[in-house]
Amino acid sequence: MEVSSKDASNHQDAASLQSIKYSRGHLQLLDQRRLPLEMIYLDIKDSKDGWVAIRDMVVRGAPAIAIAAALSLAVEVSNLRSFSGSSAEAVSYLIEKLEYLVSSRPTAVNLSDAATKLKNVVLVAADRSEKAEYVFQAYTEAAEAMLVDDVADNKAIGSHGASFLRDQPKNSKKISVLTHCNTGSLATAGHGTALGIIRSLHAEGILERAFCTETRPFNQGSRLTAFELVHDKIPATLIADSAVAALMKDGRVDAVIVGADRIAANGDTANKIGTYSIALSASFHGIPFYVAAPSTSIDLSLSSGQQIVIEERIPKELTHARGGQGEQVTVSGISVWNPAFDVTPASLITGIITEKGVITKVKDGAFLVKDFLQPAPANPVKVSS
Amino acid sequence: MEVSSKDASNHQDAASLQSIKYSRGHLQLLDQRRLPLEMIYLDIKDSKDGWVAIRDMVVRGAPAIAIAAALSLAVEVSNLRSFSGSSAEAVSYLIEKLEYLVSSRPTAVNLSDAATKLKNVVLVAADRSEKAEYVFQAYTEAAEAMLVDDVADNKAIGSHGASFLRDQPKNSKKISVLTHCNTGSLATAGHGTALGIIRSLHAEGILERAFCTETRPFNQGSRLTAFELVHDKIPATLIADSAVAALMKDGRVDAVIVGADRIAANGDTANKIGTYSIALSASFHGIPFYVAAPSTSIDLSLSSGQQIVIEERIPKELTHARGGQGEQVTVSGISVWNPAFDVTPASLITGIITEKGVITKVKDGAFLVKDFLQPAPANPVKVSS
Repeated sequence: MEVSSKDASNHQDAASLQSIKYSRGHLQLLDQRRLPLEMIYLDIKDSKDGWVAIRDMVVRGAPAIAIAAALSLAVEVSNLRSFSGSSAEAVSYLIEKLEYLVSSRPTAVNLSDAATKLKNVVLVAADRSEKAEYVFQAYTEAAEAMLVDDVADNKAIGSHGASFLRDQPKNSKKISVLTHCNTGSLATAGHGTALGIIRSLHAEGILERAFCTETRPFNQGSRLTAFELVHDKIPATLIADSAVAALMKDGRVDAVIVGADRIAANGDTANKIGTYSIALSASFHGIPFYVAAPSTSIDLSLSSGQQIVIEERIPKELTHARGGQGEQVTVSGISVWNPAFDVTPASLITGIITEKGVITKVKDGAFLVKDFLQPAPANPVKVSS
Repeated sequence: MEVSSKDASNHQDAASLQSIKYSRGHLQLLDQRRLPLEMIYLDIKDSKDGWVAIRDMVVRGAPAIAIAAALSLAVEVSNLRSFSGSSAEAVSYLIEKLEYLVSSRPTAVNLSDAATKLKNVVLVAADRSEKAEYVFQAYTEAAEAMLVDDVADNKAIGSHGASFLRDQPKNSKKISVLTHCNTGSLATAGHGTALGIIRSLHAEGILERAFCTETRPFNQGSRLTAFELVHDKIPATLIADSAVAALMKDGRVDAVIVGADRIAANGDTANKIGTYSIALSASFHGIPFYVAAPSTSIDLSLSSGQQIVIEERIPKELTHARGGQGEQVTVSGISVWNPAFDVTPASLITGIITEKGVITKVKDGAFLVKDFLQPAPANPVKVSS
């Protein structure tokens, strides 16, 4: 099983931060619990190491978790000394391990979806060959493709976003971009979505400065985004979430780019709490506000953001230091409202940047998200009934 | 010097939180460094105790610092066993102590202003009598008046604000109020300004719920305002600054009331960073936005908020836990922008609530602040040159 892993490893740009380092037979995960003060990679030798790393929050971010799980099993498979069974037995082996991996974070939808896809891959492979090695090879290639595809999608988002912003008439000189939460290499397989566009703008020499918010209460901005920006030597400034409006009033922000948890068919976008407030400030100050996400974040079954249910998180994230892990910092007995997300209405969003291109508004101010994702054929065939 | 301190002690309402406990000859300060987890009062026996308490941040908030300093010297004077000197020698004694007290926080304008006023009081007293006791008595009464006046002003703000809000046609049932930062008994001599109105609304039975923000980066909301609200048994909920817009969208806020650092002649208001963002959200959601402050916060020499210089504070408040006192929480090398205040334009402000009444807008949307503070006489006297 000594197959070149050129395709899977070449996707990664050594200069940019990597949370997942992979070549066939080898996997390392950046221990995000030690960030931002220490940068330590842990060797992941098999699915058990992968399970522990996910449960213990070494790796976080929905795409990153799913890919780390898949690759931990790919490494285990690559390093199997002997497997004397049939392709059917290889399938049983892989499915058992995939179910075990899903149990590391039972509520993570991406992880469970990825496991389902990989199960189908190995079942199809077993139909085609009786050799266990063929099944293992199919599994490994599918797991590696997840890594490659996620990075490729993010790079496409970065490229579409940077081109689009460069071509705006107002942006004749370098631009400064504000972002919120963490949407970078630490949350994805690499490059990132909103932060990926900032990386691309910087690489093209048209980024003046990135501004990142703290992103209370879990501090993804001050802990993770600030870390990524400093790591990649991107000129960057950290501000309190509450300082966004003052910064915009000073004329120091040319565009806002944020990620998305979920995008409805009309463009309404659920994202980390605080996004809506930033969109209101951007609108008031005439600053364009972009959402960057893979098209898989768009859920056409939701007609508007009103159908998105917002998760509420534990009070401890506000009442105790370090996102609930540290000492008590507020009085006992205070009630807390701690929503994880808010919904920004499409009316406040200038464009949605995906790996397929940028969705902008038509004349009446609507996003035709469905038409963008499912374009009519250029020469439609007439169907007569 | 055994004079009844009835006037000075009766101002205080035992049910409400007191950061300054005073009766003639006795002063205790709530140790705000121990809040919100412990409620410990320190005995302040003389100006040296007062000096240490101010330097070590036992007491904070501009009005509270000035009053604590003045009263620490009043206690020292009340407990003097013998003073054989003249009134001129009493003046020297008091002025030396006042200058010493100012040195505890040399940049605190309120403290320095209070010392100047008190120096004038004792100089005038010495002109009237040769008895040291007369000078000491004048000093003590003036110091006590500062305490009484600040609480009386705050109670008047609370009363005007509560009446005004109760009389709004939309407020036929109980109302929920959002506030920012700490403007309560911990920042003033008692009751508070914006938080004083919330106290008054609660006392009158027309408060549904108070919402307080964390108030990053120094957490005056989560540490201090939450503590005051729980102490006074006011129904209250703590939210992240970034959750304000989502809360308003849910229809859960009927009014916003904030304090003011400085108010310009046109009504533009400088207040804790984040106030401007809250005002933008309130405006978008059609929620009235009030500023509550003593009229001494209005500076008619400033024609607009553009003339207000905004203090920038140290990066450590964002990069380290506990407002810069704790462990490092973000990567080394990130640039930080940490403005202490922002300016909310008068266009976003519904009314300014002072101890003299509520300033509302005239037909063209302007606040006639100067006319409110310096009303023309009812029957103006014609002056011929």
